[in-house]
Amino acid sequence: MTPISRHIGVLGAGQLGRMLAISGYPLGQKFGFLGAGPGDPSALLGHMHGAVDDARSVEALLRFADVITYESENTDVELVRRLAREVPVYPGAASLYHAQHRGREKGLFDRLGIPCAPYRRVAERAALDGAVAELGLPAVLKTATEGYDGKGQYLVREPGELDAAWAAMAGREAVLEGFVAFRRELSIIAVRNAADEHVYYPLVENRHHDGILRTTIAPAPAVEPAVQQKAEGYMRALLDEMDHVGCLALELFETEDGLLANEMAPRVHNSGHWSIEGAQTSQFENHVRAITGLPLGETTPRQPWAAMVNIIGETGPVEEVLRMPGCHLHLYDKAERPGRKLGHVNVLADTREALDAALARLAPFLP
Amino acid sequence: MTPISRHIGVLGAGQLGRMLAISGYPLGQKFGFLGAGPGDPSALLGHMHGAVDDARSVEALLRFADVITYESENTDVELVRRLAREVPVYPGAASLYHAQHRGREKGLFDRLGIPCAPYRRVAERAALDGAVAELGLPAVLKTATEGYDGKGQYLVREPGELDAAWAAMAGREAVLEGFVAFRRELSIIAVRNAADEHVYYPLVENRHHDGILRTTIAPAPAVEPAVQQKAEGYMRALLDEMDHVGCLALELFETEDGLLANEMAPRVHNSGHWSIEGAQTSQFENHVRAITGLPLGETTPRQPWAAMVNIIGETGPVEEVLRMPGCHLHLYDKAERPGRKLGHVNVLADTREALDAALARLAPFLP
Repeated sequence: MTPISRHIGVLGAGQLGRMLAISGYPLGQKFGFLGAGPGDPSALLGHMHGAVDDARSVEALLRFADVITYESENTDVELVRRLAREVPVYPGAASLYHAQHRGREKGLFDRLGIPCAPYRRVAERAALDGAVAELGLPAVLKTATEGYDGKGQYLVREPGELDAAWAAMAGREAVLEGFVAFRRELSIIAVRNAADEHVYYPLVENRHHDGILRTTIAPAPAVEPAVQQKAEGYMRALLDEMDHVGCLALELFETEDGLLANEMAPRVHNSGHWSIEGAQTSQFENHVRAITGLPLGETTPRQPWAAMVNIIGETGPVEEVLRMPGCHLHLYDKAERPGRKLGHVNVLADTREALDAALARLAPFLP
Repeated sequence: MTPISRHIGVLGAGQLGRMLAISGYPLGQKFGFLGAGPGDPSALLGHMHGAVDDARSVEALLRFADVITYESENTDVELVRRLAREVPVYPGAASLYHAQHRGREKGLFDRLGIPCAPYRRVAERAALDGAVAELGLPAVLKTATEGYDGKGQYLVREPGELDAAWAAMAGREAVLEGFVAFRRELSIIAVRNAADEHVYYPLVENRHHDGILRTTIAPAPAVEPAVQQKAEGYMRALLDEMDHVGCLALELFETEDGLLANEMAPRVHNSGHWSIEGAQTSQFENHVRAITGLPLGETTPRQPWAAMVNIIGETGPVEEVLRMPGCHLHLYDKAERPGRKLGHVNVLADTREALDAALARLAPFLP
């Protein structure tokens, strides 16, 4: 045990917990997880204390942990509030409360002057017609909570689809968003520690297929410094307003009128996985540093270009990846299943041409 | 489980096993260890199966493992031979047999035409006088086995010290080595897999204090390409002769007459720790790749200069390290004790001046 060593409890034991642990052990930290069981991606990387919905397991994690963090914005806010009376939980309940509900999230963007798509909260079918009248069509109806990887979304093109869209919400509160004609999706990750240090990774460009992130290019090509500054300003406002400690990710639409905030996640984020080999300090190490009260590390890229390619559904020709210069394989120890994130490949290159050539060789992993 | 996923059993659960695991999980590998107990540096990074001298624990590891490796050249050769009848053990018994005994090691160097210091094997006190008559003084008397970090060595300056030197061997077989006037100590790490791929890291420069490695500079400054080639040739001969699979480290003296082999280790090596962030593929990842039958990764440095500073005895101001650009902290979760390796700091720099400036800031960790 060293002076900086802490026991970190993680709610969840998936790939994010796994990569937090891999990056945290070199700092002398120890990890314990709540998850489904010994087959979880994090299970071999620390103590497993049982399931998050089992009271005795939660007690065991509380006894283990000096600080608690979580893998998902769908974590129960009440649980976090209760745990936080015993040990620090980072990010705190305020971050979780806003990030897990699209209505509250957009309300926060509004209050902080962060531009986002026009939206209306829709709690019942009757309210949907009025929202459409105000925002026009096409528009996207999204569940207020629990959406991820494009799930819980319905693109409404004409009024005849409104019943089907509402039915897809399955009775859950929803948010109607005006359709945004965006050039591309960007995202940014910021980190803040309790000593109020702030660091920001460069904006990255994300490419999706069927609602699932497939490729991230880091940094995003052709981003003016003023745009990076603007995004950092939004992040600073969010971090400070929520007294956020740890990583915070924000997805943004790049439009003709500038950046529009889409949604945020109070955690390490798939669009930051490039940083493991791509940045001086990875998002995972910086999250661990932030929640254990350590100084934050540099976020600058180690090479001019990096890309991250998700391995989705099937493992694919990963042995080939090991033969590719500048490529780094990250598997999560998960069984194959359609649409499931099984791992990712990080690619590093000194020129855009070399990056594109490597991405071409990774085509078997792309849709 | 993916097609490349293997269960790796490790004899030992110290910092080398810890760093093997941290680098192996991203490849989808799983780890199990034999060690002293839950306080071991590797204990939280995989299954712990009990002690290496406990038959039931060894059986448990055998049931777990698809392949077995080890942390120390002092591992029992008979145990390795026995295990290898059930699952592959890499590096194999031949590597271990030669590396753990200075007499056999130097005999191998001789057979392969690898220059080393003049030596005589000394099995009893009477043989020591004859050896001194042949090699002259000063000379170094070393135990044939189990020496590490400068232990088991006695520098003999004059004949009156011979009794004390022999007494220090405590009855063990010894080797007398002629004194070598060397400019500096270099080392090289090579990796070979069962498909007979070979890769070599650049020669590095090692600085010791009280027999313990304190600093490695990678690559070693002012090494001619022909010298690197010569060292790689020695390694190729050793790898092939021993049918070695995994990392092999060789310490060398740089003298006016060229390189002299000192000793080898059939494992990842402290002088290769710089490669974690410093090389495209770390020695740990390449060892895991080699023993699990995967293609080997690039060994090229990611930046022009790297250094590794060991944290010895006391943890020291590690929080300061986290504030230093280009520095990466690696702690082993070990209690402080004089002379004990508790961790290391990797430093990366684009110029020699920047490297030296960073090393100056790390002075609190140096003797």
